Amino acid sequence: MNSDVLAATVTTGPITGSSKVYRDVDGMRVPFRRVHLTNGEHLDLYDTSGPYTDQAAAVDLRKGLPARPGVVSDRGTQLQRARAGEVTAEMAFVAAREGVSAETVRAEVAAGRAVIPANHRHPELEPMVIGKAFGVKVNANIGNSAVTSSVAEEVDKMVWAIRWGADTIMDLSTGRDIHLTREWILRNSPVPVGTVPIYQALEQVGGDPTKLTWEIYRDTVIEQCEQGVDYMTVHAGVLLRHIPLTVHRVTGIVSRGGSIMAAWCLAHHTESFLYTHFAELCEILARYDVTFSLGDGLRPGSIADANDEAQFAELRTLGELTKTAKAHGVQVMIEGPGHVPMHKIVENVRLEEELCEEAPFYTLGPLTTDIAPAYDHITSAIGAAMIAQAGTAMLCYVTPKEHLGLPDRKDVKDGVIAYRIAAHAADLAKGHPRAQERDNALSKARFEFRWYDQFALSLDPDTAREFHDETLPAEPAKTAHFCSMCGPKFCSMRITQDIRASVAQGMADKSREFAEHGNRVYLPLSS
Amino acid sequence: MNSDVLAATVTTGPITGSSKVYRDVDGMRVPFRRVHLTNGEHLDLYDTSGPYTDQAAAVDLRKGLPARPGVVSDRGTQLQRARAGEVTAEMAFVAAREGVSAETVRAEVAAGRAVIPANHRHPELEPMVIGKAFGVKVNANIGNSAVTSSVAEEVDKMVWAIRWGADTIMDLSTGRDIHLTREWILRNSPVPVGTVPIYQALEQVGGDPTKLTWEIYRDTVIEQCEQGVDYMTVHAGVLLRHIPLTVHRVTGIVSRGGSIMAAWCLAHHTESFLYTHFAELCEILARYDVTFSLGDGLRPGSIADANDEAQFAELRTLGELTKTAKAHGVQVMIEGPGHVPMHKIVENVRLEEELCEEAPFYTLGPLTTDIAPAYDHITSAIGAAMIAQAGTAMLCYVTPKEHLGLPDRKDVKDGVIAYRIAAHAADLAKGHPRAQERDNALSKARFEFRWYDQFALSLDPDTAREFHDETLPAEPAKTAHFCSMCGPKFCSMRITQDIRASVAQGMADKSREFAEHGNRVYLPLSS
Repeated sequence: MNSDVLAATVTTGPITGSSKVYRDVDGMRVPFRRVHLTNGEHLDLYDTSGPYTDQAAAVDLRKGLPARPGVVSDRGTQLQRARAGEVTAEMAFVAAREGVSAETVRAEVAAGRAVIPANHRHPELEPMVIGKAFGVKVNANIGNSAVTSSVAEEVDKMVWAIRWGADTIMDLSTGRDIHLTREWILRNSPVPVGTVPIYQALEQVGGDPTKLTWEIYRDTVIEQCEQGVDYMTVHAGVLLRHIPLTVHRVTGIVSRGGSIMAAWCLAHHTESFLYTHFAELCEILARYDVTFSLGDGLRPGSIADANDEAQFAELRTLGELTKTAKAHGVQVMIEGPGHVPMHKIVENVRLEEELCEEAPFYTLGPLTTDIAPAYDHITSAIGAAMIAQAGTAMLCYVTPKEHLGLPDRKDVKDGVIAYRIAAHAADLAKGHPRAQERDNALSKARFEFRWYDQFALSLDPDTAREFHDETLPAEPAKTAHFCSMCGPKFCSMRITQDIRASVAQGMADKSREFAEHGNRVYLPLSS
Repeated sequence: MNSDVLAATVTTGPITGSSKVYRDVDGMRVPFRRVHLTNGEHLDLYDTSGPYTDQAAAVDLRKGLPARPGVVSDRGTQLQRARAGEVTAEMAFVAAREGVSAETVRAEVAAGRAVIPANHRHPELEPMVIGKAFGVKVNANIGNSAVTSSVAEEVDKMVWAIRWGADTIMDLSTGRDIHLTREWILRNSPVPVGTVPIYQALEQVGGDPTKLTWEIYRDTVIEQCEQGVDYMTVHAGVLLRHIPLTVHRVTGIVSRGGSIMAAWCLAHHTESFLYTHFAELCEILARYDVTFSLGDGLRPGSIADANDEAQFAELRTLGELTKTAKAHGVQVMIEGPGHVPMHKIVENVRLEEELCEEAPFYTLGPLTTDIAPAYDHITSAIGAAMIAQAGTAMLCYVTPKEHLGLPDRKDVKDGVIAYRIAAHAADLAKGHPRAQERDNALSKARFEFRWYDQFALSLDPDTAREFHDETLPAEPAKTAHFCSMCGPKFCSMRITQDIRASVAQGMADKSREFAEHGNRVYLPLSS
């Protein structure tokens, strides 16, 4: 074992202004983040952060997280059990997290409109649901590459990402120690972990895509299923006949998995083994209840290539594969673009729903312009918010490092926060019953100059506080009825409070006047 | 004069990878930023940065910028002249910048669908146009408050904001040295400068809104017109009868100008002097060709208050005032929200266009959620992109410091870049003819591993390069056919280039085979 693993440390302790609480649901402890307000009230929020933010929890990365009680293996998939009318422990758990009935969860899972990625062999998991009837979810990609980062760093990034609100994690490692990195992440992850098995398979054949075989791939998948991976990206929709459609694109094939499979298909001039062996793959995944994330290997990598024939040809194939997977009882999500200008975003959701029986859509951004490397968390948060409003169930984050390098700790946080914003904006636009509670609580705190509450209710209390401190660091400024933006004379909030008092007084005056005139609505003309 | 003013310095020199070029249009020098590519090509971009990025320009802040030749005063407004069929020098200038015909500009200005804010007394200006037929524009707010910052800092922020793409600047100073700060900004600003005169008027009466009078306000406006301010926010739509509509809001009145006028109306229990004296105000502004920016004093300050009766009642009044202003030949823009959830954004544009005769809409964000103080450049870039797609002509930026403090230099840049992203995403979605050129050029550079070109074509070449350097600092990495994200083995772009070559080879093979078989499309069945 690398010495760096032994030195691994992660950030623990509650988020500023909050504490971890649990609600008992059939003997299960369902976690929430409770924000404590200075006016004695509190607000409970959906909590992705796991035991790491629980002051009472003992964290030992070397031991991993404790298993949740009652994990049932060898009893089929959530999809099969939902179809059979069973409300599983996992469904009850996520229903409590989402604030909906367990029956709603069961029905959505049974219809294939929602998935609960929960490998029987990942008992450390706190179950969560991905589907458009529920809160919009966010995935954070981590993982090392041949030229950067270590196992300890990746574990730290995982814990850091879920602290700020990542609902799932994908370990996209392509470098050294793929198995070991994943083991440390899985044993310490309270959120579902996704992978792209073709990356590890490619390492196994020395990086030459043409040397890949179904057998090598299959064994890699089984290894990862055994380890506890909850969902897997499989680029089975990249067919031989699709490849020529990409030749005149501005940016060709930009998905790693897609380009690997395209290279294989071309070299052997035969159909993709992922496609020809898809039924066998379904049998393997069903055994562990691993969820498919059918990859969009031909997603557009530039505005110019958006919604083109290559992209939609693959989507049609993913529609076929969705039916096959569901026939095997395997849960399915569909991955989506990429780079898409705003006016072409909704079409992606419409077509995905039509072709893939409303399987949960899981999109990367999309980036709404190509011209802002170093700010692609923003170019893509715009597209992410819009595509989520249109029905996307989970958003894969994009960090400021996209196109330039691998995300470090700061990038991970920036990406997660940008995507929590997009997801929440979409929840508001979709009328999610509990979304606006938080906005209202924060805005009320803002209007009443409860600065600490404003920080505590925000997505990132530490940075909000730090920014306020930059100009008004003194403690009394946190209760002052103004801020540094306008200073005391110009504060609109303060003036409005005066107005409110004045209007209230005015109403009282009018009311007295009304009474003095005998409570008549119209005064006598002669008066 | 404060000693700090004498020490003022600003950032000069070209943006990395670019140089300033001018196109001669009727003897005027119309500026562009020319990006030089390593393949010998170049791309000319719209350029807001003024002489500061021109290596040949001598910048002396104490002298101010040179006047552009041919500024015509005492000849009415752009609106009046456009209606008379005249193509002014300013129209010809902006037509060249936008890449459209001068007649298009004249027609849009004549119809009141576009404005060219250009006070006769601001000859340092490089004219620009604001209207939905043209590229979406971005305004950056700067200005000091009672508790922070100096004149030199504000001049520096102005130059810094236009370097990164701000099309106009608003000086919202409320503290000391209001006149002096504005003077330094105006004399050194190549972009239109906007103000909110009520702020200075309020300083004049010691900060007590109830002591304001029409005469004090009028004199302040004249002083600012004389100084060269190009557009002014006037909150003349806040009427006495609107105020009770705000009482049960979550965040009441959040506009400074709006709350000042509301306090005045209530204290005197009489109609706003801005409304009752609006015709006189029109006469003053017409004299200098100062453009109205009719302020939304009752804009929503929280998701809960969006699109409510108070907001739309004021918008109806702004519609009336628009007609009055145009009858006086004064150019008009309409300011818009605020905080608006995504599903309520389009309604704002629709109603503004209906009520205000399609006068250019100029919106602050809107923020699509309240829960992310410290990241409101992102919450609002989402709303800004969407509202611009729907027809907003200019976006007022929001910086990460919104709600927490005044923006410093870093915040100004972060805000401008986030808003250039939103504006560009909207230009793409609206099918702006030249917008996609830049995306295509950058994506082509990305696909061909021309790293330097990718940086140079981006909104922020310095940060893009810096991020790339973090993992692959060596010079050869800038020409390498991979990056640190995937490493050499997994690079999808490299694999795709191989595929492209292979498909091309395949085509050649097929073509040879075709020739060998006598160039017949269908082979004889017996062959």
